[in-house]
Amino acid sequence: MKAELAMKAEKLDADDELAGKRAEFVLDEVVYLDGNSLGALPANVPGRVEDVVLRQWGRLRIRSWDESGWWTAPERIGDRIAPLVGAAAGQVVVGDSTSVNVFKAVVAAIRMAESAEPAGSGRDEILVDATTFPTDGYIAESAARMTGRTLRPVTPAEVPAALSERTAAVLLNHVDYRTGRLHDLPSLTAAVHAAGAYAVWDLCHSAGALPVGLDEHGVDLAVGCTYKYLNGGPGSPAYLYVRRDLQDRFDSPLPGWNSHADPFGMRGDFTPADGAPRGRVGTPDILSMLALEAALEVWDGVSIEAVRAKSLALTDFFLECVAAYVPEGRVESVTPVAHGERGSQVALRCEGAGDVMKALVEHGVVGDFRRPDVLRFGFTPLYVGFADVERAARVLGQVLARSA
Amino acid sequence: MKAELAMKAEKLDADDELAGKRAEFVLDEVVYLDGNSLGALPANVPGRVEDVVLRQWGRLRIRSWDESGWWTAPERIGDRIAPLVGAAAGQVVVGDSTSVNVFKAVVAAIRMAESAEPAGSGRDEILVDATTFPTDGYIAESAARMTGRTLRPVTPAEVPAALSERTAAVLLNHVDYRTGRLHDLPSLTAAVHAAGAYAVWDLCHSAGALPVGLDEHGVDLAVGCTYKYLNGGPGSPAYLYVRRDLQDRFDSPLPGWNSHADPFGMRGDFTPADGAPRGRVGTPDILSMLALEAALEVWDGVSIEAVRAKSLALTDFFLECVAAYVPEGRVESVTPVAHGERGSQVALRCEGAGDVMKALVEHGVVGDFRRPDVLRFGFTPLYVGFADVERAARVLGQVLARSA
Repeated sequence: MKAELAMKAEKLDADDELAGKRAEFVLDEVVYLDGNSLGALPANVPGRVEDVVLRQWGRLRIRSWDESGWWTAPERIGDRIAPLVGAAAGQVVVGDSTSVNVFKAVVAAIRMAESAEPAGSGRDEILVDATTFPTDGYIAESAARMTGRTLRPVTPAEVPAALSERTAAVLLNHVDYRTGRLHDLPSLTAAVHAAGAYAVWDLCHSAGALPVGLDEHGVDLAVGCTYKYLNGGPGSPAYLYVRRDLQDRFDSPLPGWNSHADPFGMRGDFTPADGAPRGRVGTPDILSMLALEAALEVWDGVSIEAVRAKSLALTDFFLECVAAYVPEGRVESVTPVAHGERGSQVALRCEGAGDVMKALVEHGVVGDFRRPDVLRFGFTPLYVGFADVERAARVLGQVLARSA
Repeated sequence: MKAELAMKAEKLDADDELAGKRAEFVLDEVVYLDGNSLGALPANVPGRVEDVVLRQWGRLRIRSWDESGWWTAPERIGDRIAPLVGAAAGQVVVGDSTSVNVFKAVVAAIRMAESAEPAGSGRDEILVDATTFPTDGYIAESAARMTGRTLRPVTPAEVPAALSERTAAVLLNHVDYRTGRLHDLPSLTAAVHAAGAYAVWDLCHSAGALPVGLDEHGVDLAVGCTYKYLNGGPGSPAYLYVRRDLQDRFDSPLPGWNSHADPFGMRGDFTPADGAPRGRVGTPDILSMLALEAALEVWDGVSIEAVRAKSLALTDFFLECVAAYVPEGRVESVTPVAHGERGSQVALRCEGAGDVMKALVEHGVVGDFRRPDVLRFGFTPLYVGFADVERAARVLGQVLARSA
């Protein structure tokens, strides 16, 4: 069985059109299945960061705001992310953390809903994914509190029934961070629109792993981080998408000088910039941002459809290997089997998951542990191969057999 | 005259106890008087950043959140900044931009004022420095709008008279970004407190240049950037100070998962962390943050009083050299002469200032231009010497003599 799966892995790797991308990352003997938490280091990043520090900052200093393109980096890098999430240029801006961008997006969506209706017509409710990554819920609660709305947590499946003429905005995760479940962005967005509300999507666990299609599906606003499947580095800045025809109505709760129409005019009154820069706030963190810009170059020539196909093949193969190697009844997948409902990770419920993950890491297989009992494995198609997958499942089987 | 001032510069440099610090920065033949916009590169930063990228991210990857101290960096680096602004440990946290921190601080101050009074007692006004760096005003306006308060712009001199039982919070700049005027933090803070309101100070142009004394003067909340006199690099993260006895009442408008009492509990309900971490929001930008941490090491063994003494000597000497070298009537200083009212910069009003600054830069003297007619020169005591000052004024005199 082992020989059979190892041979199958070899064949799958040989046929993998993305296999060459692996050389563009700094990797070692570890099987790294935690790229859904922190992506591996792209090989071109260290040299770029050195140039930013030594030449751009060290020698050009203040001149780099113009000469090294620092000032325009948030939009320029946004335009690099745009095709990965199915957006035309001019709609994505990079900066701040995901949490801060959730705040901008949810407040802006509430204000859009308010401005679209007769005064006092009462769109007073915000729906939020009850299974969401907690920060989205905390921030949405703050947005609701500060705008006098009520936050109503519902599961994504309950959203269509929960929508009403009271709904102002809906905040949803494209892929659930814990289970890896992929939610139906096109149909949920359509349902939100049919109710006259605005849809805000969190793409943290989908961007770079599968097609998102923001423009195609008419998403209103979206946010995402860049340190998972986009490999931007620890805490690299997040991004904000505002659909082009909504940009004039994007009324930010964080109108910093970077989002002013004339930032160097130093005017006392605020006039928002047109387009994507309206989503900016303060001075962007250039080191992290330009590391991200270098990291995004690994996507040159890569189709997100090919990435998705490989992602599904990787998770399918992992489930197959787990079934073969892991003693019966020791783990249970909480990630959907249906391709249409699966992101790029597999989450296994497992007794003693914390200790099991420690043992896996000691044996060179890195995933992560989510309380109380979940082993989480992320599969980054750009640098994870099928032999890695076979090895990870085999080591998991050995660890669980030993602790039986 | 020239020989005399050059000799004086030589003597001042010889007597400068901070002269040795210059070697800890990457400098060249340029006279860099723009450290109040972007501080020069500390020499130990490139090596640190390389280690963060290649070893911490590249090799340890996700393990670095614990093993490389990434998770605790915001408080740890806050504690490094604390003594520079006169704060005991545990009150400063690093992260986000200055603008985002102004939003947290002003909203939190409004909520403190509200919670301290009987309901509906009507502290409905926010005072903001009308001469402030614009982003503070824009953000304060948003904070006022989102909390149902009124923003009232006044000059710092008008603050005492403007304070009343209606005042909830006051946002002030310690040093004016344009004129270099130092405002009287102790007496303004006392006046704010006497009115029962909360004082929020923006330290962008004072921290690292002069003593601030946050604890000593009972400041409630403060924010500041780290890329000016603290040399943290382009867009390095800002910081937030919340006085210890107010931390339990710090009710953040941006309650991200990083500020949760149990961030990895992934709970649906928000319970704020105790202490400085309550000011965090989302995942911190590690590259920029750890570059800043290295940059702060140049402060080891430096007293901020010595920095202040040198800063005043530098600006005094610059004004003396300008008076000697610059043709009569071509520039007018808008920076106060009195030491007690001067920050660490000199702003000269000058006809055609934009072109004059271009010529200065071409001749190796870098300051900056602020519309409509201000030449701004910042003096960073850690790496600017008196010979630099003499040369800058001499070149300015030559440029203006030529264009006469």
